[in-house]
Amino acid sequence: MQGELESALGRLLGREISTVGAGRTDAGVHAIGQVVSTADAPDDADPVKVRDALNAMCGPALSVRACREVPADFHARFSALSRSYIYALLVAEAPDPWLARTTLWHPEPLDVDAMNEAAGHLVGNHDFSSFGRIPNQEATPERTLYELRCTRNDDIVRIWARANAFIHQMVRSLAGTLLQVGEGRRDPDDIVAVLAAKDRAAAGPVAAPHGLCLVSVEYPDGWSGGPNVASL
Amino acid sequence: MQGELESALGRLLGREISTVGAGRTDAGVHAIGQVVSTADAPDDADPVKVRDALNAMCGPALSVRACREVPADFHARFSALSRSYIYALLVAEAPDPWLARTTLWHPEPLDVDAMNEAAGHLVGNHDFSSFGRIPNQEATPERTLYELRCTRNDDIVRIWARANAFIHQMVRSLAGTLLQVGEGRRDPDDIVAVLAAKDRAAAGPVAAPHGLCLVSVEYPDGWSGGPNVASL
Repeated sequence: MQGELESALGRLLGREISTVGAGRTDAGVHAIGQVVSTADAPDDADPVKVRDALNAMCGPALSVRACREVPADFHARFSALSRSYIYALLVAEAPDPWLARTTLWHPEPLDVDAMNEAAGHLVGNHDFSSFGRIPNQEATPERTLYELRCTRNDDIVRIWARANAFIHQMVRSLAGTLLQVGEGRRDPDDIVAVLAAKDRAAAGPVAAPHGLCLVSVEYPDGWSGGPNVASL
Repeated sequence: MQGELESALGRLLGREISTVGAGRTDAGVHAIGQVVSTADAPDDADPVKVRDALNAMCGPALSVRACREVPADFHARFSALSRSYIYALLVAEAPDPWLARTTLWHPEPLDVDAMNEAAGHLVGNHDFSSFGRIPNQEATPERTLYELRCTRNDDIVRIWARANAFIHQMVRSLAGTLLQVGEGRRDPDDIVAVLAAKDRAAAGPVAAPHGLCLVSVEYPDGWSGGPNVASL
C-alpha cells in the first residue's frame, strides 16, 4: 500500500516522494483512518486535485480520503497523540461473505460482559510484554492504553483499543486473550496475572489479522485522521 | 456459486444433487437472500448439520444462512411471490475500499428526490421491454413492479426494487436510467415516454453489476429468504 501510494505520488508530482504512515499494519490488517505525511510535495500542489488524481491512479484497495497542507514540523507518526483500532467479530451461526475479509467469524457465543471486565484490568500505563514484541531492542514495552472495551451491535462484536502507541501485534494479542475470556476458557481476573507475567506465553494467541482495522489517529487540536467512528 | 454449492451438497450427501435458485444473478451481482431448493436430499438430513457442513466446505464467497425442510411441492423459483433487489451507490468525493466490491462509487451528487419522482412512474404492471431482455422468445416482458424507491443514508444511496419477477438486466437498467435522472441529465417525467417506447434504446445504460444485490425472496405465509433488510 505504501509502495503503491508513493509510486502514484511520484508519477503525479514528477519527483520521488517518500511518505511516513502514522501506524504500521501487519499483512492482512485494514486501515480506514491511516494518516500519511510527506515532506517532499511541492508547495503549490492542490490538495483536492492530488486526492482525485491519486484515487484515479490507485487500485480499489487503496483510497485517499483527503489531502491537506500541514505545518513543516508535522510528522504523521511522531505528531500523533494516539491510535485507535477496532477488532471486529461476526458472532453468528453462519458466516457472511460480505464481512469475510474484514471480520473474524466466531460461530460460538461470546460473553461480552466478561470480556469488558477483563479489559478493565488492562487500561492504563503498563509494561505490555505479555501482549506483543517491542519493535527493537532499545524500545520500551511500556504503553498507555487509554481505552479497551467491547461492544455488541446485533451479531457484530467489536473490541475498541486506543493507546499512545502499540507494540507489535499488541491489539491482536489483546483480542486473542479477550476472546478466551469471552469463550469462558479464561477468568476475567486472570488477566491481572497475565499482565504481571511480562511473558508473551502467558497471554492468548494472536487473533487473525483480517479482523483488525486502524480506524483513526489522533493529533493535537482535535484533528483526527479517519471517519466518524461513532457510527461503527 | 451454484456449481460450488451442488458439488459440496453432493460430497456431503453422497449422491448427485441438483438445485434451483429463486433468482438468477449475472456475473458480479451479489445475493444475500438467495433461496435454493432441491428435491434430491434424503429425508433424514439434519438441516443444521447440513448448513454447518456446507459452510465448512464452501469458500468465503458463499455462505449458507439456514437450511430447512420444505413441503414436497416447494420450488425456490416457482413458489416465490416476489424478489427484492437493492442497487447501492456510494455518493462521496473519495472511494471506499471496504465498499468497492459491493457499491458503485458515484463521485458526483445525486438528486434523490428527482429519482423517486421518476421511480413513481415505473411502479405497477407494465411491459418493461425498455428496461431489459426477455429470457426467451415465449416469455412476456410484462412484470409487476411492486416497489421502486431511492433512499439516502449518509453517503449511501440505495435503489430498492421489488417485483413478481424481473426480465434480464432489468434492475440494472432501471438503476442506470434513474442515475441519469439523479445526475440531472434526464427529466423525471421523461420516464413515462421511456416506458411507453418498449425499446431498450430509450432507457439509460445497464449499471455496473457490483452495485446490485438480491436481498430477499418472498414466499406465501410471510416466509422470506434473506436477512432483515429494514436495517440496510
